[in-house]
Amino acid sequence: MSKTIPYKIYLEEDELPKQWYNVRADMKNKPAPLLNPETHQPMTLDELSRVFCRELAEQELDDTTPYIDIPQEILDFYKMYRPAPLVRAYCLEKALGTPAKIYYKFEGNNTSGSHKLNSAIAQAYYAKKQGLKGVTTETGAGQWGTALSMACAYLGLDCKVFMVKVSYEQKPFRREVMRTYGADVTPSPSTTTNIGKKILEQFPGTTGSLGCAISEAVEVAVGTEGYRYVLGSVLSQVLLHQTVIGLEAMAACDKYDIKPDMIIGCAGGGSNLGGLISPFMGRKLRGEADYEFIAVEPASCPSLTRGKYAYDFCDTGKVCPLQKMYTLGSGFIPSANHAGGLRYHGMSGILSQLYDDGLITARSVEQTAVFEAAEKFARVEGILPAPESSHAIKVAIDEALKCKETGEEKTILFGLTGTGYFDMVAYQKFNDHEMTDYIPTEEEIAASLAKLPKVD
Amino acid sequence: MSKTIPYKIYLEEDELPKQWYNVRADMKNKPAPLLNPETHQPMTLDELSRVFCRELAEQELDDTTPYIDIPQEILDFYKMYRPAPLVRAYCLEKALGTPAKIYYKFEGNNTSGSHKLNSAIAQAYYAKKQGLKGVTTETGAGQWGTALSMACAYLGLDCKVFMVKVSYEQKPFRREVMRTYGADVTPSPSTTTNIGKKILEQFPGTTGSLGCAISEAVEVAVGTEGYRYVLGSVLSQVLLHQTVIGLEAMAACDKYDIKPDMIIGCAGGGSNLGGLISPFMGRKLRGEADYEFIAVEPASCPSLTRGKYAYDFCDTGKVCPLQKMYTLGSGFIPSANHAGGLRYHGMSGILSQLYDDGLITARSVEQTAVFEAAEKFARVEGILPAPESSHAIKVAIDEALKCKETGEEKTILFGLTGTGYFDMVAYQKFNDHEMTDYIPTEEEIAASLAKLPKVD
Repeated sequence: MSKTIPYKIYLEEDELPKQWYNVRADMKNKPAPLLNPETHQPMTLDELSRVFCRELAEQELDDTTPYIDIPQEILDFYKMYRPAPLVRAYCLEKALGTPAKIYYKFEGNNTSGSHKLNSAIAQAYYAKKQGLKGVTTETGAGQWGTALSMACAYLGLDCKVFMVKVSYEQKPFRREVMRTYGADVTPSPSTTTNIGKKILEQFPGTTGSLGCAISEAVEVAVGTEGYRYVLGSVLSQVLLHQTVIGLEAMAACDKYDIKPDMIIGCAGGGSNLGGLISPFMGRKLRGEADYEFIAVEPASCPSLTRGKYAYDFCDTGKVCPLQKMYTLGSGFIPSANHAGGLRYHGMSGILSQLYDDGLITARSVEQTAVFEAAEKFARVEGILPAPESSHAIKVAIDEALKCKETGEEKTILFGLTGTGYFDMVAYQKFNDHEMTDYIPTEEEIAASLAKLPKVD
Repeated sequence: MSKTIPYKIYLEEDELPKQWYNVRADMKNKPAPLLNPETHQPMTLDELSRVFCRELAEQELDDTTPYIDIPQEILDFYKMYRPAPLVRAYCLEKALGTPAKIYYKFEGNNTSGSHKLNSAIAQAYYAKKQGLKGVTTETGAGQWGTALSMACAYLGLDCKVFMVKVSYEQKPFRREVMRTYGADVTPSPSTTTNIGKKILEQFPGTTGSLGCAISEAVEVAVGTEGYRYVLGSVLSQVLLHQTVIGLEAMAACDKYDIKPDMIIGCAGGGSNLGGLISPFMGRKLRGEADYEFIAVEPASCPSLTRGKYAYDFCDTGKVCPLQKMYTLGSGFIPSANHAGGLRYHGMSGILSQLYDDGLITARSVEQTAVFEAAEKFARVEGILPAPESSHAIKVAIDEALKCKETGEEKTILFGLTGTGYFDMVAYQKFNDHEMTDYIPTEEEIAASLAKLPKVD
């Protein structure tokens, strides 16, 4: 018996998830182990604990425990901005004239503007619990850095952010949000690290890169007493924390007897998509239900659809562990793509394995079409979406229009990861018809893949 | 019997208000009538209808009907971003170590970033219903223009925004949000109107003013077939629409047996404060309950605390009706104040009358102290507040700290009208310790008040 579906479903506090779900426990083929970049042997807990907090390193390696308790302090923090609503897109359905039922899980109702806060608070909490003084990280577009700054301000933890210099200069407002939350924001490359100095000597005019910022953040974390490095996506621990998205979405669906036929999310490093689909994937893996899962990536950075499933470096600086994943090569540089959060050469190890096993599908979409979808969505649903999130909107709209043709009443669920308030430079380009699309050539991808590390 | 109070109270859809509340119906001393600026006679419905939509003009003049039905189309739009949560500021209470219970009604969870959307959709709806093609308005800081753009995009109505030139140039992101919602945004003064041309001839290098932008918007509305002018604050119709804030807050309080001792809001034109307090004021006027109401205004633009209760022009261009209100004079220019939404020389007629009757109190606060409060709030409550809203935060914190001294367990409710994502230039000044305070001298205010229009 189905109830009337409100525009927005907010769970009650006592309905909120109290455990994260570890999808690896239900996977027949587990993700391949992380390897030591020098020895090519599986990373041990001790090795991982030099870079990450101990409990996070444990979570990274745990592929058997299905549910992990969320500490009370994190549950309390979640209550400040969660539950995130599951929204019925009545207005979008009407505008499209589709018989499909469209839902989205909206993660943008917090100052970081995205789902990143779900893992930021977890990682900051474990650092605090371990008695650390602070954490270091890098940020490109700035969502992750903002989220981490917020989490650290709340816990009274020091937060050092290396921000890619071009973003530091061109996105001053993101920088100021981080500073307002007390973070120490350094443009990268900087003269505060050896690797930064070296790069500045070699390339005096460089505006930086994510790879360089990661290397600086890791150098400071490893070389400073009481600090660890934290990362906002890709890692299995991050996907674990992000399952709060999918668990809430599933609870809301169950409460109102909503049965999604397909679940769609944008995929950069994979933490949002992984977090959204994990609990549903668990049901699929256990044979309890079936869903079509669609990862949407930018045509300019198509790791799943055109990359290779192989061991690769997670960072350009090659200091982090090797991970088996769908990758375009750690030297791959995506161009002309404004969705900064999706400009990553690789993909979460968990999602890569699920994709390789045929359990999820992937599509790549072009930027201009993504912004057209974003604009349409903003005008009827009232939320100005982040460019990253708009990749999922694009495919959700495509699927809803297919339903219009076939008359099928499919139920579509997609992840709306965040808002675009700090992405107005990209919107301006779109508004001024100055936006371009870019698809890497076969040769470019082949050349990048030729440089993958050799792992036996 | 009191229930456990969740961090955030979201009403269910069937608990949402279906009528606005018109506090004038319960006021013994009604606000003075609007006057024709030429004849000084009370404005008639026909006169008002030349500038405003007919039904809005009726609402403006109606001081006897206590409840006015919210049309279904507006209720549907409200469902997209409402209910706004009533938040228990557990974290702020803990950080302050106060026995006070602090609540805030948060209106920032929508892309316009503020409460302005509540009236924008209403005004756009009545324009659409009247068969108009479009509406014109002015915007300074940009929140109102953004809200109106969103409402018009939803209804398929044309939206012409005159944006003060200095904001148009220095706040390009706000401008782009409006353009993404399809608005036609013109920097003011412009060459598209007679008044604009005249001002540009007189002052070739001017960066514009709100007064000039209003005049341009009114000129286009009155001179273009099928257009009307709309305004985002001050007017009684706007306060009426904004009562959805107070009605929701009161329903949430009643549901959880929360009894506020004091209700605090920032006051520029007064629509947010008026909307929040109206239903509570109704109870006070009817003798059903008692509350302390506090209007918080910037020390740089202190219309209630240092202005005069007199008839004045609502706009610098002197084309709008005369209103009796607390005013600093329509030529008063507040300086060094970043809370653009509070830089208005006058105050809502309804609030002015209530203040004159001693039913609400007012305080003025300085900018630097406001940003200190904003930063503190952001770090513990996770929401980066708008500078305007932070005026209310400042006084709420002051009152909570008084409770800490006296040991009183007062219940404090304040209005958090919006987010500061497009105000990072001001935050940057604060972060860089470059923010200054400014309080107008007695002479400045006296000189401005000397130019009030003479009304018998």
